[in-house]
Amino acid sequence: QDISESKFGKGIVNVVAKDSSYSANFNIRMQSLFTADWDIPEVGNWSDAQTNMLVRRARLKFQGFAYSPKLRYKMELGLSNRDISGASDFTSDAPRYILDAVVMWNFYENFELWVGQTKLPGNRERVISSGSLETVDRSLLNSRFNIDRETGVQLRHSFDLGGDFLVKEAVSLTEGEGRNITSGNIGGLHYVGRVEVLPFGDFDDYSGADFAREETPKLAVGASYSFNNDAVKTRSSQGSYMVNDLGFYETDISTFFLDAMFKYQGWSVMGEYANRTAGDAFAKNSNGTLTGAEVNVGTGLNLQAGYLFKNNFQVVGRYTSIDLDDEITQVVENQYTLALSKYIVKHKLKIQTDLSYTDMNLNLDDGLMYRLQFEIQL
Amino acid sequence: QDISESKFGKGIVNVVAKDSSYSANFNIRMQSLFTADWDIPEVGNWSDAQTNMLVRRARLKFQGFAYSPKLRYKMELGLSNRDISGASDFTSDAPRYILDAVVMWNFYENFELWVGQTKLPGNRERVISSGSLETVDRSLLNSRFNIDRETGVQLRHSFDLGGDFLVKEAVSLTEGEGRNITSGNIGGLHYVGRVEVLPFGDFDDYSGADFAREETPKLAVGASYSFNNDAVKTRSSQGSYMVNDLGFYETDISTFFLDAMFKYQGWSVMGEYANRTAGDAFAKNSNGTLTGAEVNVGTGLNLQAGYLFKNNFQVVGRYTSIDLDDEITQVVENQYTLALSKYIVKHKLKIQTDLSYTDMNLNLDDGLMYRLQFEIQL
Amino acid sequence: QDISESKFGKGIVNVVAKDSSYSANFNIRMQSLFTADWDIPEVGNWSDAQTNMLVRRARLKFQGFAYSPKLRYKMELGLSNRDISGASDFTSDAPRYILDAVVMWNFYENFELWVGQTKLPGNRERVISSGSLETVDRSLLNSRFNIDRETGVQLRHSFDLGGDFLVKEAVSLTEGEGRNITSGNIGGLHYVGRVEVLPFGDFDDYSGADFAREETPKLAVGASYSFNNDAVKTRSSQGSYMVNDLGFYETDISTFFLDAMFKYQGWSVMGEYANRTAGDAFAKNSNGTLTGAEVNVGTGLNLQAGYLFKNNFQVVGRYTSIDLDDEITQVVENQYTLALSKYIVKHKLKIQTDLSYTDMNLNLDDGLMYRLQFEIQL
Repeated sequence: QDISESKFGKGIVNVVAKDSSYSANFNIRMQSLFTADWDIPEVGNWSDAQTNMLVRRARLKFQGFAYSPKLRYKMELGLSNRDISGASDFTSDAPRYILDAVVMWNFYENFELWVGQTKLPGNRERVISSGSLETVDRSLLNSRFNIDRETGVQLRHSFDLGGDFLVKEAVSLTEGEGRNITSGNIGGLHYVGRVEVLPFGDFDDYSGADFAREETPKLAVGASYSFNNDAVKTRSSQGSYMVNDLGFYETDISTFFLDAMFKYQGWSVMGEYANRTAGDAFAKNSNGTLTGAEVNVGTGLNLQAGYLFKNNFQVVGRYTSIDLDDEITQVVENQYTLALSKYIVKHKLKIQTDLSYTDMNLNLDDGLMYRLQFEIQL
Repeated sequence: QDISESKFGKGIVNVVAKDSSYSANFNIRMQSLFTADWDIPEVGNWSDAQTNMLVRRARLKFQGFAYSPKLRYKMELGLSNRDISGASDFTSDAPRYILDAVVMWNFYENFELWVGQTKLPGNRERVISSGSLETVDRSLLNSRFNIDRETGVQLRHSFDLGGDFLVKEAVSLTEGEGRNITSGNIGGLHYVGRVEVLPFGDFDDYSGADFAREETPKLAVGASYSFNNDAVKTRSSQGSYMVNDLGFYETDISTFFLDAMFKYQGWSVMGEYANRTAGDAFAKNSNGTLTGAEVNVGTGLNLQAGYLFKNNFQVVGRYTSIDLDDEITQVVENQYTLALSKYIVKHKLKIQTDLSYTDMNLNLDDGLMYRLQFEIQL
Repeated sequence: QDISESKFGKGIVNVVAKDSSYSANFNIRMQSLFTADWDIPEVGNWSDAQTNMLVRRARLKFQGFAYSPKLRYKMELGLSNRDISGASDFTSDAPRYILDAVVMWNFYENFELWVGQTKLPGNRERVISSGSLETVDRSLLNSRFNIDRETGVQLRHSFDLGGDFLVKEAVSLTEGEGRNITSGNIGGLHYVGRVEVLPFGDFDDYSGADFAREETPKLAVGASYSFNNDAVKTRSSQGSYMVNDLGFYETDISTFFLDAMFKYQGWSVMGEYANRTAGDAFAKNSNGTLTGAEVNVGTGLNLQAGYLFKNNFQVVGRYTSIDLDDEITQVVENQYTLALSKYIVKHKLKIQTDLSYTDMNLNLDDGLMYRLQFEIQL
């Protein structure tokens, strides 16, 4: 057995070459999740609880620099069945094992070029690692509107506007159909741009919970605009393909995100607004008849606030509202969540639990959901 | 290239943090298997040999402690096609890549709480690693009756009754449908309890072959009882789903195991008895008609004995009898196996071969099977 | 963080045990590929470009020696969707995750016995790692004729004929149906033999580009003969199964390869010739009617030459001709490729691009293909 200078949470392998020609951090993590769900009809009794125990996420992650500290790499692999699901004709009928496979090249001053598959510069909640959330999992806003990962190129830049006022910009160019696609591009390309401002200086703005207990207020505000030209899926780069008689129904889909993260003395507040529009949301065949598929246009709002006690217990409240504009269903969904976390070693070793009530309109069943999750990251 | 203090068979990475905040052991292994099978009809000639060469198992395994030596973790991944097969609607149509993803917390004295997916406290032969068997593979008893892995919680305890008399107990609570299930629980929950006694002191009772050449007789006896409430699969948590007109046929399934391991001066003797019963073994539709599926109720017996020579060759004889009680087929299967192993570095580097004759009743074809396997574990 | 004596490109873990009981090299790599294709009809306009951005390959590789330097092991895993695709009934309906899982035992003088799954001793271009090519990817000859990987045994030998004249021989015995097969052998076995001569001494003959800038001319010539007895797939061990009314159509398939690699002062020249014949290439039902499937018999020729400039830019020209003999389609395909590579750290960090024109006979559309690939190997 060898002795390592590394510590828990810093990777099971964490090395830098003596000649500075590379570094490597090899990290594993896993989440075990228990869920209980009840359907609550407008009239009548609650359903029996539907329970579920599963390995929600398990990951292998490799990252570091190669050849020069200016060339960073990251490869992250999903292992759990929910992580790797989604095999289709478009992914060579193979599971979607790779999450990230990207190199990041700091080619000039504050500019970085990213090549490969990774998260697009979309909404903040999506870009925060699933291992750094202050709730058991992301909100409904994220599941309905996020633009996730794709293969392509990104250009990233940041600068200091003076004082501690930081500005970060990112643009990406991808194919617009999601991750692990091998079948080539359908329709047009996908363009995303994002701007972030951090007026009071840098902080841990892509992570839940204020472990740093910031002594002065810290704020990050970001806005993203995604234009998916001639898109063929119901949620822009996500959702299902809109198949029609000639192949695929194509329409331009725009998604706009506005988000913010605020941290101060143990408080963490995150807000997100999302809006999706489409040229013509209703998928049609060549003769104009409806295929039944439709783009999930509409708006979403997520607001959450948490306070981290000195004993590393945290309470979080979350409100999420989803208002899909489609003229057929007009579903409005409001979800209220109360979460409690115990951080044993920050996000590296923690137990999280939450209770969510989902209120549906149109006489649809409401729902109550209880979740308990254990997470470890080495 | 770095110099490691570790040795062959102890992992390709085997480290402990200087500050004792974690340890990590990263192990790889692979088995290459050649098989030849002949069908032997009651009347007439043997069939031609059916041959098969495959990578039978290949694994990545990560284990150690995290944060404190009292919190252990284990993650084991299957890589070979037979390891990861079994994708279905119930596994998100994704391969079953994760074998173990579990944390084990020694929260009080001799009590340990296990959370995640791992082997249930079932029959001994199943719990012995596939890399520590004294035969090429497990017996027919195991394939017909074992309760394998599930996600959930286990409570483990052990104590010394005085002298060297050890007692170990385990209980588990899971969903009852097997590993890597993402679709939630169907029917009721699965409860397993196990008690083991080691009257003559601790020894390597979950591993084939007596490498320690125990100077005094060592014995372990275990009994497990599995109660799968409203189970929906033909072999309790294993086998196939019993689908009917309304969804799934549900019946209570009980499985009982009694097993023992004995080692002394190079001898290793293992015996197992299994018995499965069901509320009503014949799956029915809502109107009482048979669906054709049935619970595999019945009994199994496995007895095997091996002797390890000083040159690390081992001879093993095995007798397995399977008597399924179902009223339709009433198959009785007896299998006689003679095995020869050469352990180059115990179970870490070995060649194993065996010859099995399977005797079937009811005029079914008998069978002869020859196997040759090479295994390496780093 | 620990300090490693290893360097970029030598693995993220690269250790040897102090007691020389094992060594381990753990390597990761990834390729990001952008492709644009145009169809060029004999009459009329070019099609619009079909574009594709994907993680072409991503791999984990483990290799070293175990127990003794005379016993080497290698395990290589594919991660990308194209690497792991090909699930079928014959692979337990599971993705083909394992590429190599093999041990190599130097049991006597210059003899080595290989057991497990790995590349067969077929054509040179196939055996060269996909990470050591001097073009973006292998030629059409390889995709039409190569015999890839299988599980089984290989015997390898080499000797010095005097002076620097080296001779290397290899034979393999496998099942003849490709990699990751779990369903057993169909038809007969697959026998491959290969002889190589290196008349002017050893050199890096299984890698593109002359990084060594050989001061004297270096040459390797190899010939392989593959006999697949009662084969059931259209490309010997590759392609699709030839199903007929009784199960599978079986015919003997022979594949012959002649290949050479030459390197001198920055020049690298590689040539390959392939020829495939079959007992009866047209798959038939039991009554003699055609099933529509046919063995891909015919010949292929690939010639390529590259020059590596002092600044590590390399230009390569490639000509490939495929002439399938089948009497139905009689397609002849000629492809002309011009490639440019920039090697930042040899094959470990490089950018490669090529442009290929494919000329088809029989009034089929010609094609133009542009590719750009980035590769990193740690």
